[in-house]
Amino acid sequence: MTRAARADAAVHAPGTVVEVRDTPVPYQLASRAHHPADTLITIRPGVELGGRRVLLMGGPCAVESEAQLMAAAEATARAGGRVLRGGAYKPRTSPYSFQGLGAEGLRLLDLARRRYGLAIVTEAMDEEGLERVAEVADLIQIGARNMQNYSLLRAAGRLHKPVLLKRGPSATLEEWLLAGEYVLAGGNGQVALCERGIRTFAHETRNTLDLSCVPLLKALTHLPVVVDPSHATGSWPLVAPMARAAVAAGADGVLVEIHPDPEQALSDGPQSLSLPQFAELAASLPLIARAVGRHV
Amino acid sequence: MTRAARADAAVHAPGTVVEVRDTPVPYQLASRAHHPADTLITIRPGVELGGRRVLLMGGPCAVESEAQLMAAAEATARAGGRVLRGGAYKPRTSPYSFQGLGAEGLRLLDLARRRYGLAIVTEAMDEEGLERVAEVADLIQIGARNMQNYSLLRAAGRLHKPVLLKRGPSATLEEWLLAGEYVLAGGNGQVALCERGIRTFAHETRNTLDLSCVPLLKALTHLPVVVDPSHATGSWPLVAPMARAAVAAGADGVLVEIHPDPEQALSDGPQSLSLPQFAELAASLPLIARAVGRHV
Amino acid sequence: MTRAARADAAVHAPGTVVEVRDTPVPYQLASRAHHPADTLITIRPGVELGGRRVLLMGGPCAVESEAQLMAAAEATARAGGRVLRGGAYKPRTSPYSFQGLGAEGLRLLDLARRRYGLAIVTEAMDEEGLERVAEVADLIQIGARNMQNYSLLRAAGRLHKPVLLKRGPSATLEEWLLAGEYVLAGGNGQVALCERGIRTFAHETRNTLDLSCVPLLKALTHLPVVVDPSHATGSWPLVAPMARAAVAAGADGVLVEIHPDPEQALSDGPQSLSLPQFAELAASLPLIARAVGRHV
Amino acid sequence: MTRAARADAAVHAPGTVVEVRDTPVPYQLASRAHHPADTLITIRPGVELGGRRVLLMGGPCAVESEAQLMAAAEATARAGGRVLRGGAYKPRTSPYSFQGLGAEGLRLLDLARRRYGLAIVTEAMDEEGLERVAEVADLIQIGARNMQNYSLLRAAGRLHKPVLLKRGPSATLEEWLLAGEYVLAGGNGQVALCERGIRTFAHETRNTLDLSCVPLLKALTHLPVVVDPSHATGSWPLVAPMARAAVAAGADGVLVEIHPDPEQALSDGPQSLSLPQFAELAASLPLIARAVGRHV
Repeated sequence: MTRAARADAAVHAPGTVVEVRDTPVPYQLASRAHHPADTLITIRPGVELGGRRVLLMGGPCAVESEAQLMAAAEATARAGGRVLRGGAYKPRTSPYSFQGLGAEGLRLLDLARRRYGLAIVTEAMDEEGLERVAEVADLIQIGARNMQNYSLLRAAGRLHKPVLLKRGPSATLEEWLLAGEYVLAGGNGQVALCERGIRTFAHETRNTLDLSCVPLLKALTHLPVVVDPSHATGSWPLVAPMARAAVAAGADGVLVEIHPDPEQALSDGPQSLSLPQFAELAASLPLIARAVGRHV
Repeated sequence: MTRAARADAAVHAPGTVVEVRDTPVPYQLASRAHHPADTLITIRPGVELGGRRVLLMGGPCAVESEAQLMAAAEATARAGGRVLRGGAYKPRTSPYSFQGLGAEGLRLLDLARRRYGLAIVTEAMDEEGLERVAEVADLIQIGARNMQNYSLLRAAGRLHKPVLLKRGPSATLEEWLLAGEYVLAGGNGQVALCERGIRTFAHETRNTLDLSCVPLLKALTHLPVVVDPSHATGSWPLVAPMARAAVAAGADGVLVEIHPDPEQALSDGPQSLSLPQFAELAASLPLIARAVGRHV
Repeated sequence: MTRAARADAAVHAPGTVVEVRDTPVPYQLASRAHHPADTLITIRPGVELGGRRVLLMGGPCAVESEAQLMAAAEATARAGGRVLRGGAYKPRTSPYSFQGLGAEGLRLLDLARRRYGLAIVTEAMDEEGLERVAEVADLIQIGARNMQNYSLLRAAGRLHKPVLLKRGPSATLEEWLLAGEYVLAGGNGQVALCERGIRTFAHETRNTLDLSCVPLLKALTHLPVVVDPSHATGSWPLVAPMARAAVAAGADGVLVEIHPDPEQALSDGPQSLSLPQFAELAASLPLIARAVGRHV
Repeated sequence: MTRAARADAAVHAPGTVVEVRDTPVPYQLASRAHHPADTLITIRPGVELGGRRVLLMGGPCAVESEAQLMAAAEATARAGGRVLRGGAYKPRTSPYSFQGLGAEGLRLLDLARRRYGLAIVTEAMDEEGLERVAEVADLIQIGARNMQNYSLLRAAGRLHKPVLLKRGPSATLEEWLLAGEYVLAGGNGQVALCERGIRTFAHETRNTLDLSCVPLLKALTHLPVVVDPSHATGSWPLVAPMARAAVAAGADGVLVEIHPDPEQALSDGPQSLSLPQFAELAASLPLIARAVGRHV
């Protein structure tokens, strides 16, 4: 086999185990072979994911109040972020934890969007919620716990809104791409993938951020790839280095949790950057983006 | 607790589980608390690990021949690398695989050092080998499989040569630092740590590169941290993106496998960069180093 | 601390990491402290889960045809099994795989129940499906991929049918019990847990069967514990040894995939026992049950 | 493919990933194909491993004192155990932990052997220690941390004593068998394998006991398989259920940590059975052994 041929094999199937396969990959619409050019998702006019510009997304884990959300939105816009994150419906491990503000959270996200000109990304947890969320969100998040909730994926396939599909904590890339295939096969071609850490033995971080999935996904699929260093590490001092590493690895966007007062956050405070810390991170990204032929 | 105090707690113990501990960390000499300033290791005069300069190390997995090693050494020097890697004694999963050239490999490494002015890093597999390797190596590698070979670690503690301690594929940071503590406690303060991927369910790469360990180790210890993206990913197309991400994450050095003819390599060909690919990688690193306040 | 006190601590929190906690466990209704006696679930009159009798459940992965299901049902009944499994709605990794017979599958399950006097366990994938499934099923399975589908769990909490909650492939016991807590908190106290393998680096089996969770759950919770050795191993020659080990470890039931013609199965053939193999397994269980003070 | 042919393929390669391979397994002497009959190891006259009799091995983690060891030895013999375990040289994660009594520990093991007629299993940590340990031990343990210490394995291959090779915490079965192959290829055919838990995300036990490896190894290799439920779980209340499950799964022996006063143990107290608890466990094993056609 020539070096060129070997390179190709390795790009499309780099692990030793996968290399022995001669069967085609089981996803079709998601594969790079099916659609060689990068998919460019227009989240809202002027806000694109998947092009030369690396998209910066910030915001709180959960929408808690108008004051909290507006402060985060203002900081996001000021730092050059184009997308505001914030959960209105929160999937929580315990039924006794804060479950989000619900409809009131959506109202506040809509307000922030109009006030700061930001696109909105927020999570839908079920088919009924999908419709409500789609009225406000520019990008609909399907969370890690629901990555293989096929009824939800099928419903998302019938939408005309872009979807941000988070990786399940123990999903292989193939399973993740097949989950995306459920949405694509339903007729919705606007799917982006978000790595947010996988579950490993390494308990000194909340999850293990699998950054090598970024260049590997770029070989396997045409869909944009986003990295969430906040959920991946669970620890704010690690967020900025990992956001920088994500851009260096070729990510199309980074999704960062920020909070005007992390110590008082109702959820995920330990992994949230303060607003000045977020500004500092944002200032460090353009040079790294330039090193990989992109801009922020 | 104030934000400053919380920051400190999070830096030293970012995982949810670890945060509940109030006991001191079990390593002492390796801890940042014991030695607040970064340790700077002088591998050979003018070649330092742990300072502002990010150290680039390249070379083949195994020394195979004079021609192969000299070609790799020349390419390493030309790309700005200061350290040449190459295994003379190879720990191989199978007893029937190529086990390295042994003494002849050491002779060739010594020749490359004199010819190209590079420092040498190579592995010692046992106490007897440690003495032979120490005659040639400037930096002695203790491999991932031997990370908890305490007899070998104790012997390394009696040396007057720097040690590069690779992380075991399922070692926690605490176990890794305690392995380093065996060397430090023996009187050898020149220990660097090398992340080379951990073993997880994710079989689409050889291992999972755990880059978040870099900033976390920087908080926990004063020892320099190196990243080996070649063993971590097992796939050459992923090596350059991960090397760039490692520098962005704050690594003190990167260790990259290169080969003049990867298809003919006796070991680890699929994860070796060709010499032009290595030159291209090296050219992309300075801008990233600058973004994190360093140079190459 | 006395031996008795230490024993108690160890039973409720055996891992080294967990032992340092002094906070109460976050689940309440599911905890052994809340409800010291074992919960006994009456699946249908005379078919109980959680008592001295170990419940044997068999059946195909998916309902494929009347002939296939009736053959499996007859073999299950003949072997002493009391519950028939069979999927009508199948959550499949790929949208292009066989997705189950749907309503026709439910009709056939109902037929098998009446013909062979077996209780039926089958999966519901979403809230809408829950209602349809509940009309036929005696025990409603919530699958591993939906373990943290909180909308589905809440809907299950409003049912008056027992629920079999499979463990997510990377769920900790605490997360699993909290998922059960969603059902319990909704008012449905009839929840059983089913271990079906966790995702680890060990790729020589489909998943890694975590049998030590059985005695650990028995200490932590009053809910019955079932083991599915078929999905856990993915390989029929391992199913019988693991079913025996599950009973020896204290499981309240075992759930085994069987097929009249495994080579022709539309899903999971490689992990299905043939009908004679199932009979042989069933014959070996009573002696093991007796060794742990139970019967089959 | 006929059912018989498929069965064979599944036995020798049960995971989905492995099934695609058509290359022979990379180990030779260890493979069932090379040596179809079970290997029977005579540890000392009358004490065999690998036959119909399941071998019970007990003893403390570390030899601490004559009184402690003799009490454990007496309890082991009384419970029907034939082999006494006890560490004289202890590989400890921290250099500051108790490292074992060394030569004095070996002297006490020798004393216990003569006094109670038990065979001795104890660990050798390095090549120098191997010779000292071989003078006393009937079965030489190579610990999990040294599973891929090839210099030690090669030295063990030159011995005329049986070797108990523990599985590394993240070793695949193939890597483990290849480690055994190093010993076999050196000329020592008396190798037994010991499963002691693997490292997974599941932190509620010390490790995750992988019992499905027992029947899988029985298909792949002719070497005897032992299970250590103490290190696997790290929690004494889980030890007896897992020892029973191991026998039900087909293990050739179980290795159990016991201590006359677990609360005062210098190492691994939380996972040690008290002497009465061990007697109770031993009494429950014969019935399970009988269920799988064996005796204790």
